[in-house]
Amino acid sequence: MLRVTGTRLMVTRLSTVASVARTLQWQRVSVNVWTTRSECCVTRQWTRCYATAIRQQRRGSCGSRRPDLGLRSRWRSALAVGTAFGIFAYFALRRSHRAAESPDGATAGSRRDDLPDIRRKDIERHKDASTGVWMTYRDGVYDVTDFVAEHPGNKKILLAAGGAVDGFWDFYAIHHTPHVYRQLEELRIGNLHPEDAAQTPASNGSSSKAFSHEPRRAPVLQVHSARPFNAEPPSELLVDDFITPTTLFFVRNHLPVPAMVDSVTVDGVGVHRPVNMSVSEMKTRFEVITVTTAMQCAGNRRREMDDFRSVKGLQWGSAAIGNAEWTGVRLSDVLAYAGVREGDIEHVIFQGGDSDAEGTPYEASIPAAIALDPHRDVLLAFEMNGEPLAEDHGAPCRVIVPGFIGARQVKWLRRITASRAVSESHWQRADYKIVPDSFNWAHDDISEVMPIYEYPVQSAICEPANGSSLDADEDTVVVRGYSWSGGGRGILGVDVSVDEGVTWRAARLTQTPQGVGRQWAWTLFDVEAAIPSDRRGGRLDVMCRAVDTAHNSQPGDIAAIWNQRGLLHNACHRVTVHVPESH
Amino acid sequence: MLRVTGTRLMVTRLSTVASVARTLQWQRVSVNVWTTRSECCVTRQWTRCYATAIRQQRRGSCGSRRPDLGLRSRWRSALAVGTAFGIFAYFALRRSHRAAESPDGATAGSRRDDLPDIRRKDIERHKDASTGVWMTYRDGVYDVTDFVAEHPGNKKILLAAGGAVDGFWDFYAIHHTPHVYRQLEELRIGNLHPEDAAQTPASNGSSSKAFSHEPRRAPVLQVHSARPFNAEPPSELLVDDFITPTTLFFVRNHLPVPAMVDSVTVDGVGVHRPVNMSVSEMKTRFEVITVTTAMQCAGNRRREMDDFRSVKGLQWGSAAIGNAEWTGVRLSDVLAYAGVREGDIEHVIFQGGDSDAEGTPYEASIPAAIALDPHRDVLLAFEMNGEPLAEDHGAPCRVIVPGFIGARQVKWLRRITASRAVSESHWQRADYKIVPDSFNWAHDDISEVMPIYEYPVQSAICEPANGSSLDADEDTVVVRGYSWSGGGRGILGVDVSVDEGVTWRAARLTQTPQGVGRQWAWTLFDVEAAIPSDRRGGRLDVMCRAVDTAHNSQPGDIAAIWNQRGLLHNACHRVTVHVPESH
Repeated sequence: MLRVTGTRLMVTRLSTVASVARTLQWQRVSVNVWTTRSECCVTRQWTRCYATAIRQQRRGSCGSRRPDLGLRSRWRSALAVGTAFGIFAYFALRRSHRAAESPDGATAGSRRDDLPDIRRKDIERHKDASTGVWMTYRDGVYDVTDFVAEHPGNKKILLAAGGAVDGFWDFYAIHHTPHVYRQLEELRIGNLHPEDAAQTPASNGSSSKAFSHEPRRAPVLQVHSARPFNAEPPSELLVDDFITPTTLFFVRNHLPVPAMVDSVTVDGVGVHRPVNMSVSEMKTRFEVITVTTAMQCAGNRRREMDDFRSVKGLQWGSAAIGNAEWTGVRLSDVLAYAGVREGDIEHVIFQGGDSDAEGTPYEASIPAAIALDPHRDVLLAFEMNGEPLAEDHGAPCRVIVPGFIGARQVKWLRRITASRAVSESHWQRADYKIVPDSFNWAHDDISEVMPIYEYPVQSAICEPANGSSLDADEDTVVVRGYSWSGGGRGILGVDVSVDEGVTWRAARLTQTPQGVGRQWAWTLFDVEAAIPSDRRGGRLDVMCRAVDTAHNSQPGDIAAIWNQRGLLHNACHRVTVHVPESH
Repeated sequence: MLRVTGTRLMVTRLSTVASVARTLQWQRVSVNVWTTRSECCVTRQWTRCYATAIRQQRRGSCGSRRPDLGLRSRWRSALAVGTAFGIFAYFALRRSHRAAESPDGATAGSRRDDLPDIRRKDIERHKDASTGVWMTYRDGVYDVTDFVAEHPGNKKILLAAGGAVDGFWDFYAIHHTPHVYRQLEELRIGNLHPEDAAQTPASNGSSSKAFSHEPRRAPVLQVHSARPFNAEPPSELLVDDFITPTTLFFVRNHLPVPAMVDSVTVDGVGVHRPVNMSVSEMKTRFEVITVTTAMQCAGNRRREMDDFRSVKGLQWGSAAIGNAEWTGVRLSDVLAYAGVREGDIEHVIFQGGDSDAEGTPYEASIPAAIALDPHRDVLLAFEMNGEPLAEDHGAPCRVIVPGFIGARQVKWLRRITASRAVSESHWQRADYKIVPDSFNWAHDDISEVMPIYEYPVQSAICEPANGSSLDADEDTVVVRGYSWSGGGRGILGVDVSVDEGVTWRAARLTQTPQGVGRQWAWTLFDVEAAIPSDRRGGRLDVMCRAVDTAHNSQPGDIAAIWNQRGLLHNACHRVTVHVPESH
């Protein structure tokens, strides 16, 4: 039964929510919203549909053709009323959408009286595409059939098909975020029957053992996932130092921190002299150099992209970046020592000491042309900011690939393999790729999409912080932030605007001199701008944009670069602050 | 006396137009428009002012704060009437602005009865900033005082101070374009007195002698300047071949084509073995290689930028780019042979055989890190597309710097100088730089602005041609074009939209395999798109956008990248075509 009350579609007494969605689709109702007593779920389809409508609406009022201009007055009135209704409905639904983000560690997977009980034996019959894939989390039952192809961890989700996902999530604790809880509850179809729930085996405790090597971390870090640990500093602290203090440097762990093993091997195609060496052997055998380079997670600023339109992944703010001095030996020297020559190989694969529940280690690769070029300054690094590497940053040895995304700079390095092909790892073949909206996970082959290596030009405002309030006594606002570009391209300039982009002021830059094409360090910027008097007692938007030495500029808006994984968000950054009335 | 008639400001009986401009400014009339019987001049200031207003207007209607919403009804009415008047005034003035572009080779500098006659001896007293700088062209007298700093040829303009510019323009024939005529007439203050005009010496004929080495050119080229020769092919022809035929390759000559001299010398800092060699000696002494690379003029697509807001320079369309096979020897090999080592020098200077009226040769430089890196494939090239270089492309030897702007790839190469500083030439120090709107030519130092080297990501639609009409029988439109990025970055994808950017389709790419970081060749693209039925009998805008391997994307609009010289226009390309009614 379907009742429409105001802007709410009330759904009651249905066997499964999934079938409602199907019914609505069959009836060509393009907006898939259902509200129950306990919570409200707004599907991605709705978000997508509404985002398109909003875009069209904006574009329509933006000087391009407006088909309504020739309509008669009453139609125009109807249009106005319709638009007003649409806007009202949007905000009303957005509010309930926000409310739907509420499932947390306590409520996700808890019983919902509006949904049917399902027996364990029925769930066990849903293990593949032919029957549909069901699984349980705590007391919840979920139909994940359509989600399997989209799962960032790919087919690994099928390990829990027909059973409980709880134990896996104990290990892959990255799932324990509000974002994932929300996505999960969107797939909810019922409750595990109380009799079966009582018999669900507890998680096997492998998790706590796997995470026995985690170090102590600075309490100031903002944690996106506790296990594996993923966290970033408050962005205001990021611009206090040109060299980011190690304790403030963002941490992006894909898996538990491993036990420390001081040994790196080199093998593979063209290796005439296999290598197995400790850090102290590296230091005696090869030239030791120090390179200052920024490192940025490919997911930096994902939260903003997610605000625009839902994406998958950890909800990084704008501080998943840092600038450090890395000391180590050149990979090109090590490969030359091993006998590897240009032309023999196409890629160099790095294997980390961190591994998943099945023992599969983290792995990534870079093109051989980069690995073998001494000008690219690819390092096997054992020091960060003059100290031995910290546990969270890959002790005792990690790879540094200046200008590349963080995911290729493998930590806890154990093995280097010269190869004709890219790494077979999930992270190389199925993740860290720009997946456009049009990509169909069921039919298209993700392994054919180019892996991300180099970062495009980026900049972000760190101070004032988004949502903060300016000082009532000040007539000006000091704007500070960072900018950076991949591939050794430096920053030519950063502009800041406090009037919605009508005028821009060039910021002062703080840089370190580096060679042409080897400008790996970031650029900090600052500028003092007069607060427009008409913003007193209201909001002020502050925007920045950078240009790199190849004259590439940041995209003006997110729409052009939105992608399913929320990677490489480098559109113009904007923070909104409150401006108090003057005293 | 100042009369206002409708949207026109009529100015009559004034001693000089310059003084009117001053008067208007003094009265804080921000729009500097004056109309005379013979022509109408709209100053840059007006264009700038209007462009800002238009931007603000668009932005205002785009979902951001609208301060008018709280106004009372009569204010809103007034606002509506004002806006309507503004729009009317804009189009009326734009029409007269277009009409003002009319001065051509026949009318520029011809007598104007509305202006006073000025004696030669008065003109001769205006030679520097203290008196103002005046000069004549044919029968016209011009006050160029404020223009001197902005002149693309810099202080060379002062060679004609207090005298006639005619003879110089015979040599620097690049001035004979409608664009320059229009700029000149904006500075008009009077007529050369008829008695003095009769005594003006004729040009000395040096021009025809200087241009005695010009070759025959393909008639299909669209000529922007005959002397020196600057021309591009029709863009529709550009995408017919992955390798651009030499006769269709754009020509950008800064000076007359010189007599052919088969000798290149190498000298400068760190050169232990000076070199003086012919092309045949190069071939025997060094490895000969062939590199396929696109070459693009930094001014490509300048006309579009000028349409948005006036810029200085040749009005290139979108075909000042080509893709060719260049055969030659590596510059890094030649420098190594001469004894130059990394660390000794910072720049490598190239001198061409082409020189100006005073004998100053064309010169440019590139960073030594690029010149010395064999992976950058910098060539001393003597063949293009398998044939010896043509006269217009630098015979017998030129520099090829893949991924850089054309201006650094010096033609008719005579001398290579290893150096600690960039070239002293005008083209290196004062031209080919991104000069922002805020740059003040009177106070800021252009030599401190970074010279342009690498090109950012670019793409343009070649077919259908802008302004063309589609076939009435076709339901689809085939869109073809090119894309390219500098610095050896390849193209990951090109998207095309026929619905104002609401949806985008991935185009098919034609590429040649090249090494990572050495993707010098361009990418051609094509896609067949359904013509939206609602565009029948109207206009259709077709847009394209490219992403390079560093995930840089093209700017969405020109405003963010507009610069005084109109260089590196890589904003999203758009062509507008007519769609006939179906048969």
